[in-house]
Amino acid sequence: MAVELKDLTKRADNYSQWYNELVVKADLAEQSAVRGCMVIKPYGYAIWEKMQQQLDKMFKETGHVNAYFPLLIPKSFLSREAEHVEGFAKECAVVTHHRLMNAPDGSGVVVDPDARLEEELIIRPTSETIIWNTYKNWITSYRDLPILVNQWANVMRWEMRTRMFLRTAEFLWQEGHTAHATAEEAQAEAIKMLNVYGDFAEKYMAVPVVKGVKSANERFAGALETYTIEAMMQDGKALQSGTSHFLGQNFAKAFDVKFVNKQNQLEYVWASSWGVSTRLMGALIMTHSDDNGLVLPPHLAPIQVVIVPIYKNDDQRAEISEKVLPIVEALRAKGISVKYDDADNRRPGFKFADYELKGVPVRLAIGARDLANGTVEIMRRDTLEKETDALDTITERIPALLEEIQDNIYRKALSRREERTVKVDNYEDFKAALEGGNFILAHWDGSSETEERIKEETKATIRCIPLDSPDEEGVDMLTGKPSHRRVLFARNY
Amino acid sequence: MAVELKDLTKRADNYSQWYNELVVKADLAEQSAVRGCMVIKPYGYAIWEKMQQQLDKMFKETGHVNAYFPLLIPKSFLSREAEHVEGFAKECAVVTHHRLMNAPDGSGVVVDPDARLEEELIIRPTSETIIWNTYKNWITSYRDLPILVNQWANVMRWEMRTRMFLRTAEFLWQEGHTAHATAEEAQAEAIKMLNVYGDFAEKYMAVPVVKGVKSANERFAGALETYTIEAMMQDGKALQSGTSHFLGQNFAKAFDVKFVNKQNQLEYVWASSWGVSTRLMGALIMTHSDDNGLVLPPHLAPIQVVIVPIYKNDDQRAEISEKVLPIVEALRAKGISVKYDDADNRRPGFKFADYELKGVPVRLAIGARDLANGTVEIMRRDTLEKETDALDTITERIPALLEEIQDNIYRKALSRREERTVKVDNYEDFKAALEGGNFILAHWDGSSETEERIKEETKATIRCIPLDSPDEEGVDMLTGKPSHRRVLFARNY
Repeated sequence: MAVELKDLTKRADNYSQWYNELVVKADLAEQSAVRGCMVIKPYGYAIWEKMQQQLDKMFKETGHVNAYFPLLIPKSFLSREAEHVEGFAKECAVVTHHRLMNAPDGSGVVVDPDARLEEELIIRPTSETIIWNTYKNWITSYRDLPILVNQWANVMRWEMRTRMFLRTAEFLWQEGHTAHATAEEAQAEAIKMLNVYGDFAEKYMAVPVVKGVKSANERFAGALETYTIEAMMQDGKALQSGTSHFLGQNFAKAFDVKFVNKQNQLEYVWASSWGVSTRLMGALIMTHSDDNGLVLPPHLAPIQVVIVPIYKNDDQRAEISEKVLPIVEALRAKGISVKYDDADNRRPGFKFADYELKGVPVRLAIGARDLANGTVEIMRRDTLEKETDALDTITERIPALLEEIQDNIYRKALSRREERTVKVDNYEDFKAALEGGNFILAHWDGSSETEERIKEETKATIRCIPLDSPDEEGVDMLTGKPSHRRVLFARNY
Repeated sequence: MAVELKDLTKRADNYSQWYNELVVKADLAEQSAVRGCMVIKPYGYAIWEKMQQQLDKMFKETGHVNAYFPLLIPKSFLSREAEHVEGFAKECAVVTHHRLMNAPDGSGVVVDPDARLEEELIIRPTSETIIWNTYKNWITSYRDLPILVNQWANVMRWEMRTRMFLRTAEFLWQEGHTAHATAEEAQAEAIKMLNVYGDFAEKYMAVPVVKGVKSANERFAGALETYTIEAMMQDGKALQSGTSHFLGQNFAKAFDVKFVNKQNQLEYVWASSWGVSTRLMGALIMTHSDDNGLVLPPHLAPIQVVIVPIYKNDDQRAEISEKVLPIVEALRAKGISVKYDDADNRRPGFKFADYELKGVPVRLAIGARDLANGTVEIMRRDTLEKETDALDTITERIPALLEEIQDNIYRKALSRREERTVKVDNYEDFKAALEGGNFILAHWDGSSETEERIKEETKATIRCIPLDSPDEEGVDMLTGKPSHRRVLFARNY
């Protein structure tokens, strides 16, 4: 598990390669022996755990509970909701047998042909079908509603081209599946969870997002409306970071889930579903990191502060430790995650580079002279600036500094997005702005044909119709047809 | 989601049916549409979450970190470790294709024959193979050791006969996989984690366990030594509740994982693995619960205290709430999970029965007369005893009461096991003791043949050779051959 400190490709030289290398060099993840599946390494998983904990807390604060549904879904379930099967059934892992046997020639194991399943099972690409098949037994009356359930799980989609965290065959996620007595309530739930995702992205990941609604083309298969949070990466491309769907009565109808409403009438149940995945790791990495490695937001960093002693011999080390250990304790008492790295098998310079690569927000270094002067060197990862501060007030300085860093990287990402979001009114300017790596606000006539033509010609898609987009009369860049508000275009991951 | 308050089968009438009914009636889990797979419902999952949180904390305190490895394992990996494939490869879910297509006759979706995988993948029944294939890239020197990794995951074993929580095709678990420079260290790790499991079972689940080592017959496929914690259920049967394995160098050899040791020699890495699963839910339910429903240990109960107001009208309800809400806040400030159930769509008697069924450790009831007298009625679930106490000191009484209950149910389970653990020296007494539902300490000659004969004739197995079993000379009940210590026999789940 030696750290790779060799030169990282520069973002300006090859952004895509920089990302792929960084994921591996920072010990976040690596390719596995199984096509398209990654191993999430302990350091990467520690960040994901912090994301999970915070999201789980926010879900519970908004009244949700967790449950667990089967990994495997009977093939026939997929055909029940017509649009859903078109969107999801095609590329998935299919279980056809339930037994292996020793190969007759002794060469290993082979599939036992006698153990063929009557009906094939697929590994869940998402769980609407199996969950609504279950909800049928849970719901008879309006008194059983709402059901506000979330599941933390692994899912699988047989993607052809994969990239670690951004698009993998297996990924980890959470999927909320709620059932309601009215359309309004299910709609409100979808919007509520969109806002939870937005708050999480901005306050914890320090990633500013545009909240909006998807065009019909980009909607979740089976949804009446899909809401999204879209983030800008440093190359100007958009990353869809979380979606929340108003499903109407589509799944209730597919699985025959009815309830007796307050007016004593039988009615189909209304639904929402919403999810974020390990893809958020990709958004986190690509928003803040630089040519020296990761830059992690303090609110999600597994190690928030690292302290490196600089010593010539064991006596000096002991002297420094005596001074530093109470500081470690004091910081931990404030809920700050601190690592004191006095290991003697790596030189300080090596450690500095390693913690920079790993994105630790604050590094303290303390040597014999600092000890004499009562000082400590502080390096903040976001700006790489160093300052010397008094040792005896450091425990007061650190919490404020972590908040400063959190705030600074958010503002930096926000400024970038603001600078690179442009209004465009004709197709030539549109193409030029795309090449410059921008988010583009443009008029659109609302037709799928126009949207598809733009995608074919420029690789840009409508990321969303922003919720805060004001009414504005205009005309579509291509067709000249009328439009009443601008929508957000970008190339995307 | 109406609660089923109809009569639960009595334990004395049919223990097995009592268990099956209780799991469903207490809203813990239910069968799914997929053979052998269950849905873990929100109340059941909330208990599992509390188990996970505590175990995860204990793993981290003992130096472990979490990671995530792929769900799917290439078929050929299973053949690498000879014993492992015999133990695990046979009954498993096999993925053979990666795409479905619309059926030509429009009847739904079918497997696309063109999407056959070159090599079949199986859904992990356990992850030693994929993990050791990964560790190969992580380890080159003793400096890379130890690796102390845990994974929380779903696994699948195609069991023929399933029972909720006890034996399901898919289940949730954690699996620790550690790599070490010496045999001693790997052994010590296996024992350390056995002790973590033992502490968790006794201090949190309130389930006393016998710690011991498995006979060769009952060893994990691929292990040199398997350690176990065994718990006695109320019917006298044993439930294997967690295992920890010393794997020697078997998986390192199978996946060619070598390291340069301190003596600069190339050596195979030493390993341990250890796991507990949602099976612990079965142990929890069957150890403490009674004919009225669940009895949950306060340390793992999602709701530790429920408060039910008894009122005739809205004014009375408001008056009670005014008094109770500060108590709710005060208890929550002490970290106690409290539910104040003033819903007016269910009568108090219905609520009482429901919370009894759900195993809430402490119930407080407060009516108009209590308000006048400054009293509250306390009911403890373990003994079903009621007492009346002063309202103004209740927040001091509750924490101690919860500990009393935790302690009481542990001691009750321990007494039962002690009373029903007998020493036996001949085969007739052995069979009689088994019928009586006992754990039996008997001499055994150490041979697999004798063990298998006993299993065939009596359905009893050697649960373990207890770690605290003293040296004692004796002779095997069947063969008369010498034995040097007693081992633990029982029928088991």
